[in-house]
This record gives sequence, C-alpha cells and structure tokens, in this order.
Amino acid sequence: MNSLRKSFTRFISMSTVKKVTQPEWHAPQPSAVGKPVLKIYNSLTRSKTEFVPIVPGHITWYCCGPTVYDHSHMGHARNYVSTDICRRIFQDYFGYNVKFIQNVTDIDDKIIIAARQQYLFEQKLSGVYQQVNSELVAKSEEYLTSYVEKNLPEFTGKDIKSEFIAWADSIASNVQDIAKEKPKFPMYLKAARRAHDAIYSTNVLATPIAEYLESIKEVATPSLDKEFGSTVNDPSIFRKLPSFWENKFDQDMARLNVLPSTVTTRVSEYIPDIIEFIDKIIENGFGYPTKDGSVYFDTAKFENDPNHDYAKLQPWNKGDMSLINDGEGSLTTGQDTKKSSADFALWKASKPGEPSWPSKWGEGRPGWHIECSVMASDITGQTMDIHSGGIDLCFPHHDNELAQSEAYFDNKQWVNYFMHSGHLHIQGQKMSKSLKNFITIEQALEDFSSRQLRLVFALSSWEKPLDFKDSLISEVKTIESAFSKFFTNVRALNNDYKHKVNDGEFVSKKLSKYEKQLYDDLDIAQDEVDVAFNDNLASGQALRAIQILISKSNNYIQLAASGETELRIDVLLQVTRWIVKILEILGFEARADRLGWVDSSEAGEGAGSTEDIALPYVKALSQFRDAVRNLAISKADNSEILKACDTIRSDLINLSVSLDDRPSGAALVKFLNASEKEQLIQQQEDKLKAIAEKEKKKQEQAAAAAKKEEERLAKMKINPQDMFKDSSLYSTWDERGIPTKDAKGEDVSKSMQKKLTKQHQQQQKLYDEYLASQKA
Amino acid sequence: MNSLRKSFTRFISMSTVKKVTQPEWHAPQPSAVGKPVLKIYNSLTRSKTEFVPIVPGHITWYCCGPTVYDHSHMGHARNYVSTDICRRIFQDYFGYNVKFIQNVTDIDDKIIIAARQQYLFEQKLSGVYQQVNSELVAKSEEYLTSYVEKNLPEFTGKDIKSEFIAWADSIASNVQDIAKEKPKFPMYLKAARRAHDAIYSTNVLATPIAEYLESIKEVATPSLDKEFGSTVNDPSIFRKLPSFWENKFDQDMARLNVLPSTVTTRVSEYIPDIIEFIDKIIENGFGYPTKDGSVYFDTAKFENDPNHDYAKLQPWNKGDMSLINDGEGSLTTGQDTKKSSADFALWKASKPGEPSWPSKWGEGRPGWHIECSVMASDITGQTMDIHSGGIDLCFPHHDNELAQSEAYFDNKQWVNYFMHSGHLHIQGQKMSKSLKNFITIEQALEDFSSRQLRLVFALSSWEKPLDFKDSLISEVKTIESAFSKFFTNVRALNNDYKHKVNDGEFVSKKLSKYEKQLYDDLDIAQDEVDVAFNDNLASGQALRAIQILISKSNNYIQLAASGETELRIDVLLQVTRWIVKILEILGFEARADRLGWVDSSEAGEGAGSTEDIALPYVKALSQFRDAVRNLAISKADNSEILKACDTIRSDLINLSVSLDDRPSGAALVKFLNASEKEQLIQQQEDKLKAIAEKEKKKQEQAAAAAKKEEERLAKMKINPQDMFKDSSLYSTWDERGIPTKDAKGEDVSKSMQKKLTKQHQQQQKLYDEYLASQKA
Repeated sequence: MNSLRKSFTRFISMSTVKKVTQPEWHAPQPSAVGKPVLKIYNSLTRSKTEFVPIVPGHITWYCCGPTVYDHSHMGHARNYVSTDICRRIFQDYFGYNVKFIQNVTDIDDKIIIAARQQYLFEQKLSGVYQQVNSELVAKSEEYLTSYVEKNLPEFTGKDIKSEFIAWADSIASNVQDIAKEKPKFPMYLKAARRAHDAIYSTNVLATPIAEYLESIKEVATPSLDKEFGSTVNDPSIFRKLPSFWENKFDQDMARLNVLPSTVTTRVSEYIPDIIEFIDKIIENGFGYPTKDGSVYFDTAKFENDPNHDYAKLQPWNKGDMSLINDGEGSLTTGQDTKKSSADFALWKASKPGEPSWPSKWGEGRPGWHIECSVMASDITGQTMDIHSGGIDLCFPHHDNELAQSEAYFDNKQWVNYFMHSGHLHIQGQKMSKSLKNFITIEQALEDFSSRQLRLVFALSSWEKPLDFKDSLISEVKTIESAFSKFFTNVRALNNDYKHKVNDGEFVSKKLSKYEKQLYDDLDIAQDEVDVAFNDNLASGQALRAIQILISKSNNYIQLAASGETELRIDVLLQVTRWIVKILEILGFEARADRLGWVDSSEAGEGAGSTEDIALPYVKALSQFRDAVRNLAISKADNSEILKACDTIRSDLINLSVSLDDRPSGAALVKFLNASEKEQLIQQQEDKLKAIAEKEKKKQEQAAAAAKKEEERLAKMKINPQDMFKDSSLYSTWDERGIPTKDAKGEDVSKSMQKKLTKQHQQQQKLYDEYLASQKA
Repeated sequence: MNSLRKSFTRFISMSTVKKVTQPEWHAPQPSAVGKPVLKIYNSLTRSKTEFVPIVPGHITWYCCGPTVYDHSHMGHARNYVSTDICRRIFQDYFGYNVKFIQNVTDIDDKIIIAARQQYLFEQKLSGVYQQVNSELVAKSEEYLTSYVEKNLPEFTGKDIKSEFIAWADSIASNVQDIAKEKPKFPMYLKAARRAHDAIYSTNVLATPIAEYLESIKEVATPSLDKEFGSTVNDPSIFRKLPSFWENKFDQDMARLNVLPSTVTTRVSEYIPDIIEFIDKIIENGFGYPTKDGSVYFDTAKFENDPNHDYAKLQPWNKGDMSLINDGEGSLTTGQDTKKSSADFALWKASKPGEPSWPSKWGEGRPGWHIECSVMASDITGQTMDIHSGGIDLCFPHHDNELAQSEAYFDNKQWVNYFMHSGHLHIQGQKMSKSLKNFITIEQALEDFSSRQLRLVFALSSWEKPLDFKDSLISEVKTIESAFSKFFTNVRALNNDYKHKVNDGEFVSKKLSKYEKQLYDDLDIAQDEVDVAFNDNLASGQALRAIQILISKSNNYIQLAASGETELRIDVLLQVTRWIVKILEILGFEARADRLGWVDSSEAGEGAGSTEDIALPYVKALSQFRDAVRNLAISKADNSEILKACDTIRSDLINLSVSLDDRPSGAALVKFLNASEKEQLIQQQEDKLKAIAEKEKKKQEQAAAAAKKEEERLAKMKINPQDMFKDSSLYSTWDERGIPTKDAKGEDVSKSMQKKLTKQHQQQQKLYDEYLASQKA
C-alpha cells in the first residue's frame, strides 16, 4: 500500500463512520521455476510426452491382461508389477482417480489346445491305465515316433529305439546354436529324450503308472489331439481350465501386492458385444466375411483411408508374416480366403473340437485382437487416456486393436498414451522353458520375498528391458537391508525417547544446525522424488534419492552417537514417515506406526485386527489349558502334565514363538524370525528322528532277545531222552537216550559219547526247569 | 496427418533406406473446464484467496501451540483437530510436503502463577497439616475473606460467616446476567461458596484433611501467593509444571489422532534467540527499553512507517485496552513507562518470584508475542506460507507477531496465509468453567470416541464457529453408524464372494447398466470431493458427497438383494476403497484391508506389528505354562493345577478373552467387547465377594463352635465333689459333695437335692471322660 492510500485509510478510520479496513495483501507470485510437468514415455511417439488427461483428475486405463492356461511367470510379474507401480504413482502421488480395466483372455487357441489335451490325456491315458502294460508301451512308441518326425525332422531316417540317444548325445554341444534358429528345439529334444528313457527302460513294466504317464505326456498329447481333438465338444471343458488359471493368476498378483483392477472383463462374457462390434466394422467398410464363416479386417482399405493410419505403433513391422501368423493363432485355417496376407481375423469359424458361438457368419469365436477393442470400449468409450501391455504385444496385437477401434468409432485416436513395459531377461538371456531359466511366480516367491521382487522392478525403468541377474539381485538385497536397518534404528531411538518422556525426563527439542541441515536434505529428496515421478514415473530415481537421504540420516545418527550433537527424534521421524509414504506409493506395505515397511507376504491380507492376530496364540493357550485341566481332572501323573508342557513348547514354534525354560522356572519368551523358526523346527525334527532311531534300535534289540528266548523255550520243551533220536545219524541208544551206535551200526566213540552225555545233562537241566514252570 | 504427408511417408518407406516413421500423434488438449483452483480463507483479506506456495510443492506452516498449565479442553480439541484436518488435506490430498511447526508456551504469567500457587499450596498447607485444626480453620477464614473482598466486592460490608449464604442464594437467579458483564463472577461465587461450606461446617475438625484442603484451595492460593509469591525463586518450580502439562497435551493429541508437528519449539529453549531478535528490532528503530528493565515495541513508530502496517488482521481493534491488557498478562508492571498505551512488551523485567534470564536490559523474561516471531522465523526464515491459530488470538497476539517480525526483517509480508479456526460453543454457549459446560479432552473422550469428535469437526467449516450441541452430536452418530454399516456390509459381501471363488464357483464380472451407473456415481463423488477440498478445504462438503455415494451404493446392494441385478463386488470394493482413502486423508484411521475405518482409540498407537499385539497373550500363555510346569515338577496335588487353570481364565478376561469351559473338555474361546469384558469382571468380583462372605460366615461359625467346645472342656475339668462347694449358698455337703444344708443352716429340700444329684451325676460322667482323656 502506498502512503497516500495509507493516509486515506487513516482519514477514513478517523472519520465518524469509523470504517477500518485491512491493509493491502500481497498475493504470493507463482515461483519462476515452477513445478515439473508430468511426462510419460508414449509408444505412439516413442518419446516422453506431457500427460494431459481427457477429464481433469480422472484417468481411464486399459491394461492387456493374461491369457490363462498355465502358471504365471516372471515375465508376467515384471509386466504387472511395473504397471502396478505406475498406476499407484498416478493414483497416490499425482492424486488421479484411475479407472483401471484389465481383461482375462479365456478364449484363445492356446487355451483350446491345452484344455483339449489335458482332457484327452485324462480320457485316453491316465483314466484308463492302472499300470504300464505292453499295449501302453506300444502306443507310447507310436506317439514318440510321430513327435520326433514332426518336431525333430533332423533325426528322420534313423531307428528311434537304438539310434536316438546316440544322436541326441552327438548334437548336445550344438543345441544352443540350433536354438537360435529354432527356439523350441531344446524343449522338443528334452521331451523326446525323457519319453525315450521311460519307454525303453529295461524294467518299463514295473514303472509306477503316474510316473510313466508324466514322462510321455508331452509327446503323447499332440498325437491324441490329432486323433481325437475334433471329438471334444463339451463347452465346460473349455471353461474349466481358464477359470482355474484365472484364479491362480489372481492369487499370484495378490501375493505380489498388485492392486486388483477396477473392472475385470472376460472375453467369454463379451461374445454378443463382440459380434455387434464386428458388424459395425463391416458396416463402416473395414471388415469382410469369407465363405468359410470367418470375418477379416481389411488392412489395405483401412491403410488407404485418408482418415486412418494402420500400425501406428510399429509401422516397420507391417507385412512381417512371422509376427502376423503368430498373432492369428495355431488353430487358424482358411487363411487363403483373406484378401491380403496382412489382414487379420475378427471372427474365426470354429472347427469341431473348438468352442463356438452362433453368429450371422456361422458358428465361430472371436479373433484375438477384437476382444480388447470391444471390452475396453465398453468401459472407456471412444477414447481412453492410457492403454498398457507388454512390449511384445505392440505388433500385431495393439496395432490391430487400434485399427479395429478406430474403424469402429471412425475416429483418429482411440488411445492417447500407449505404455509398454520392457522385456524381462533372466541372467542375460531370454526366459525360456528350455533354458532352465524359466521361473514361475510361485517359484520366484520361494527364493525371493514379494518385497524383493517389487524392489527389482521399482529400481528399473518400467519401459526399459530388465535383466534379472545376480548383480541386480544382490544390489536389491543391499538396498532392502539398508532401508530395514534404518527403520529399525529409528524405531529403537524413538522407543528410547518415549521411555525418557514417560520417566518425566526433560528432552530438548531445540534444533541445531545439524537437524536444520537434515530438514534441508529432506526438502531436497522431496524435490528429487517429485522430479523423478514427473519424469516418466521414474521410481528407480526416486528410490535412489531415498537411499541418499537415508545415508545422510545415518550420518546424523552417527554424529549424535559420537556426542557431536544431541539427538532430536522429531527430524528422524519426519524423514522416516516421508520415506514410508513414498514407499507405500510404490506399493511397499507400511507398518501401522508408519515407521517402516513390512513385507506384504508377512503382513497378510486384512491382518489388521487385534483379534485376527491374537487368535492363534489364544487358541494355543486355550488348548494347552484344556489338556492340562483334563489331565488334572483325570488325576493323571505329573509326568503326563510335564509332557503337555513340552508339547505346547514345540507347537508354539509354528507360531514363531520360542519358550526357553530357565532354572528360575520362568521361561524366556522369544519371537522368532523366519530363519530362526526354521532352524528350531529342523532341530526339533532332528531330535524326533534321533528318538525314533533309538526307539527302533531298542525294538530291534528287544525282538532279538525275544527270539532268543523263544528258541530257548522251544529247546526247553525237548525231552533229553529224545534229543539224539535221529536215525539218519544213530541206530541204537542207551536207556537215557544217548546214542551207542551210529547209523552204520558202528560204536559211537568214547570222546563223542562224553560230549553227547554233557549235552544230554545240560538239556536235562533245561527240561527239568520246563517241567517245573509247567507245574507252576 | 494429411494425405500428402502420408504419401510422402509411404514413398520414404518404399525407398532403399526403408525408414518407416510413426504417423502423427494428436496431443490431448487440456479440458476447457479445467481443474478447480485451491482457495483458502485468509484472515489477512477476510476472503478466499488462491493458494500459491513460496516454493512449489512445499508449505511452511507455523501453528500457535498451547500454553501448558492445565488440562486441554474442547476448545483446544476443536482448534488442533480442525488444523490437523486442514494439514492432512494439504499434505495427503494435494500432495504438499508440509513443514508444520508448533510451539509450546512454557513461559507465561498464567504458568508462573499456577506453578507458584501449586508450590505454595504444598509448602504451606498440604505438606504441613495432617488434619483440620482450629489454626487451619482460622487461616482459611482469612483467605476466604480476602477472596470475597477482592472478587465479590458486591458482598462487602456484611458478615461473612452468617450472611454469605443468604446473599449468594438471593442473587442465584441473577448470576447469568451478572456474568454478561463479569464473566468470571459465577466461578468466584462457586469457589467462595464451596470454601464457606467447608469452613463453617459443624463438624469441620472431623473433615478428612485432603477433602478440606481441596475445598479451600481456590480461595487460599491467591492469599498465599500474595504473601509468599515473591519468595518462590527456584527455576525448577517453573519448569516442572509446564513440562507435566506439555506431556499431557501430547497424549491428548495422540488420542485425537492429531499428527505430531514436524518441529516443536519451546520458549524456554529460545531465550538467547529472543534477546538477539529484540536487539535487532531496537536497532531497526521499532523497540525501546525502559528504565525498569523492560523493552517495548513502538507501535506508533511502526504504524507511521510508510513500509509497514500495524494490526493487519484486525485494525479495528487497535487501541482496545481490554484486549491489549489481557495480552500483556496479569504480572505485568511498569506499564506507565511505555511511550504509548498501545505499545506491548518484548521483554518483561522479572520481579522476585518470577523466573528470569539475564539480558543487557537486566533480569527478565520474554513478552508473550515475541516467542512466536522468533521461533517461527528460526525455522521458516523471513516469510512463511501459512500461520494458523485460534480466532481469539487475532488481536493483539498475531497482529503483534506480524509487526515484530516485519520490523525485524524489515519486510512487507511475513505471513502469506493466516488461517484462524473458529470459536467453539457448547450447547449454544461459550464454554466456561462456571457454566458447567467446560469439558476437558479427557472428559470428552469418556463420552465420545476420538472418531466421533473428529467427525464433529470435519463436518463443520474449520473457519466458522461451531456449536457442539445435541442435534450435531446426534447427526454425527447417525453418519458414523451409516458409514460403519456400509463398510460391514461390503466386507460381508466380499467374504461371500471370496468363498464362492475358493469353492471354484464361477462368478460373472460383466458390468450391467447398474454397475456402470455406480461407477459414474463414484466419478461424480470424486469430482465433488475435489471441488470441496479446493474450496477452502471443505471437509464437511466432502463428507456429504461420500454420504450420498454410500446411499447410492446401498441402493445398488438393495437392488442386487432383490434379484433385480446380480451383485458385482468389484464396483463396491472400488467405491469403498476410495471412500476409505478420503476418510484417511481426513485423519480417520483405515482398516488394514482398506475396507473400512477403525476408531483410533481402538487401533492404538503403533499397534501394527504382530509381535506387539500377540505379546500379552503369549506372555499369559508362558506364565501359565510356567506355573503348571513348576507345580508338576514339585509333584503338587492335581487340585493345585486345577486352581492354576482357574486363575489363567480369570487373568485372560483382562485381555478381553473369555474361556468358557464345556463338558467336552475343550473350552470355547471368545473375544469380548468392552462392555462384555466389564460385565465379566463384575461377575468375577461379585463371585469373589460371595466367596469371601461365605468364608467369613464359616469362620464365624467355627469360632462359635470352638468357643462352645472350650467352655465344655473347662467344665469337664471340674471334680463333681467340688461343683457345689459355694459357701455363700451351702454350709454342709455329703460325701459326694452334694449340699445337705444351705448357707443359713437349713436343710436343702428333697426336690432340690434330687435336682442337684442329677447335675452331680452328669458332671461325674463328664469328669470321668476328662480323666480318661488325660490318661490317654
């Protein structure tokens, strides 16, 4: 306010009206530097583009979900966890309301084959044979021969029984080279060899049936499918298998702490919508039915339309027949009826043995790409903010999806931002079942915690290839333990502080230059994280900013420990709470006190309530009490009660609790971590084993003693009179029954008679004992 | 892309270079409507102004904290919970990194007086008198007389002993009217009346000493302080009291789930900084020391400076001596040395009995306002984003703070946004100790849960007055129960869904128009909440949007229950998780599964870890096992072990667990809620009481029996020969000792002799028994 205006105000205030007004307020000016702008790597431009949502504050997002016919593997983990991290940053850092739609592909050629083969395997083999017999072996030999002819033509012409193993050995060192041309070669070789080993085993008829069938399953099912596939027509067979694997997939994702999607769409629930959608594409001039009952997308027509572009994502792959054929699926036929080899199926006529739905074009099923166009459009309408998926889906899947939807809506841009998560490699190589580096999520979670896996993905850029190699894993473990150690330290220091306050001790809160510095460091880290997240959701960069902040905080703690300054807990709590907030945004679960993280697998779903957590312990207590009480009521011996005390101690180990009995009579209560628990269980098992062995030995000794006794008893019953009555040895005996002549009629020698008399006397003694015991 | 460019691209792609490029991407355009802009009600303009932070992404915020000398009350709760809600919205909804500084006023005239009076009360009364005696009563009479003279001058001239009660009764109906002029009048009257009742009670000398002293404390301490106050000089006395109440305040805030401040500053830890700050104000020409050793702020000089404005917040209150004097504090002296009556103390010379620190102006202490200027500036520098406090602090406190800081930094605007939380009324009236509507936070938390109190504040606008009245409380309870009921329903439906999936049942996920509608309703609610938060952090408006969304969701659940549509759990989970997220932003704690809220008092501070929760149960188990084991080792009787089983059952009730023994021998485990627990504890106490009474009766009966037996034994020892040897009755006896003549020498009558002989025979029998027992 200038002084003229000020004087005027004063004049007013002195006037009779006495209206006093507030002086001028200086509106703060937005900083010249400004907040960074959110940019996303967009596959549609192959560059980072500013993110602008269609409706402010909201994001519609369609993510290509799994085809459910087998275990999810690390490639899925990478894709869905990376996507989850991105989604959470949009949602919990940038505050967008995200509607996240993910589909389940439950109709697909791979599913049809897997379901049919599993069904036929049960119908024709595992449900028929109770044991290996020559008929089964002969059949197996046929399966193997067909399998090798089809998949390993390099072998053709030789005798399978006698020459196959030698041939396989001879090419063993070249397998990886051949695989470069024929990726599935090692897998075929392995399957054939396994079957060969089983079929030509010398004791094949003695092999347990389940083991045998498992060995030949891979070579048998293609033949079975070829012969009987067309007879499999019960729709429930094609529903059961994907339903099972969808459930498994959901469980895997839950264990990886991936947020459930807002909307889940299943192809099988969208058939009428798909038919309608295809009809509209035909109506718009971009699709055509063929005489075999399929419908194709007219790529040339679309491409030549001035309003449309075909293959927006990877135009350089147009016409790549290997990619195109792969996209069409292995059960596709009638390809020759297409106008152009680049055209792709919208609707596939179904043959016998394939699930089908009625349509105006005949019995059939949707092509692969159409499902995503239809389901995404059903929820998001004619344009969406983000579409995501694995990088391998770019062409033809996503390019065809874009073409279909833009043909349907007759619009220019169905998707604004296309986000593709990068490839995953294992130890530098493509993950493959044949390379022994194929890891399912279930297997990965045996070796790594859910938190470690998420850290692996969060440390990498979501759009770049990721090599899951030892050096990365060890880096992740180092970071994880540094984070955990810091949290543990802060909690310990905080407990220490709280104790002091509870004891009425005065604890200063005045900040020195050191705490002010740490607050400044926090500001810097916050800015760095903001820059990172705005720069294509760079979670790795954000984690590295946190790492630096933790190391600065550790320096501060060290400084305080060395007496350089007096520790102020508040600054550490603030740093920790902010770090935990960012970690939570990245999908790492936070402790309830916000002073650290927990591994989601430890935390468990909805484990929050005291009752849920306490229940197993209370149950253990109650059962122990029941046991003791019942023993006491039945006036059992004290040793029985002591045994119950030992049992509860063993049982508690399963609840991660150890009770160490002490001479004072008060056991020390310990909560065990996972490895301590395992160790104790192992110890206990060893102990039980040792006891069992000792018991076994004792029983063996007792049995031996019993046998000896039995023999003695049997011997006892023999009357000495009869003990030498063996006519093959002797011919005459004296009145006591001692032999006098041998079988040949010759006199028994004196020394022999003496020996026999001594034996006779001993037996007489035993026999007398026996007679006495019988009387008693 | 136009078709010319398209042809060109195609030409390029056909050329030998074969460089194929992606077609043009259409960058989404920001919506014409746009996101709402965050506006805050700013006391510096008395209007909503756009919020622009000094540094993008960061907020520095100074909040006026408590003066710690007594219980925190509902006024504090309103202020700090409302502020907490605002802070959380800035932080967790808008994503700002908030540095929240709050002070503790631990040097203040009110604290000095409270600490001194408490100390003198202990020194002169409670530590001296073991019982009420006439000396104490005489002293009390003097205290009461002084108190009434000073505080109730209306009574002066009458006899206190005989006339006070009648006078008090006579004005009873006018008290509220008088209070309008003299707000503390009812409080004075109540205190005097209580003391009068105690002092003039007929059996005053028999009153328990603690009760008596409590009754006269309020009238006694002003006299004690007047007489001895100046002798209280031990600094620890002035530290102990605020330290105690600071701790209590922190506990109250934790129970209300108020986030701890980022930085806490205590006046007592800032004395050197304050002295330096004042020195600079003097140097800048806006402060002056006076001859008594105080320093004052020169309001006229400041006001007349063209670069400054005085009383920016409430210029109309300039010169209001009642407000100014109140701000200066009751121990202020030397006011006459000020240049102007509007000037206020920066540094107050301390008198004996007041804590003091050395300065260049002599021994003294900081004025009230200076602390906030110094401490806030120490952390935020020469300008901050937000300053907050209760509305009653506007003038003079905040206006003086602004003047001091702007004088120190010589700048125009120390604070950009001044946020004042509105007044709290109780049942339509100002809260006051005298009106029986004064509620401490501790008391409030007995009647209401922490969640209910937060709901009360969250439903109201933070800047407006709030009336804590029955209709509001009942509205809050209705909303709370509607929210909880909805969450319970969704969880039940979700459990139902999970059961189905686990059982392998197929559950459709396809959305009908009903779910699509509910998703749209969610979008609408999200936009409404966004508008609400941007409009001055309107938490009440946001909660009402949530209320509507819940009612729509309930309609959907109802529709599904009636069979109109098949329930899809996903949409309900999405709605619930979003609601819980918003509630969590408002400071309502979420369940671990994010499908509902928990009351913070239920959740407990940092109760997250399994270990923390399980520990008490495990300890109970371990101790029970110890007991049983030790009994078994010492070969105790089974009854002892059964007793241990009963004891653990009783002990578990304190952990809210009940074990109901059943005939099967396996107890039923029950987790109890608070009232069930209390009931069981009561039952147990009743049972113990009954047992104790029975035991007492038994002991009484035994004692009576023992006495009877003792008498019998005493009687036994009497030789029948001697039993009538009483010369006052008889004079001659026969050989057996039976009287023949009475004392007068007359013959004993025949009938009498017969009676005595019978008694003699009975005694003979007893005596023979006695002799026999002696021999044995």
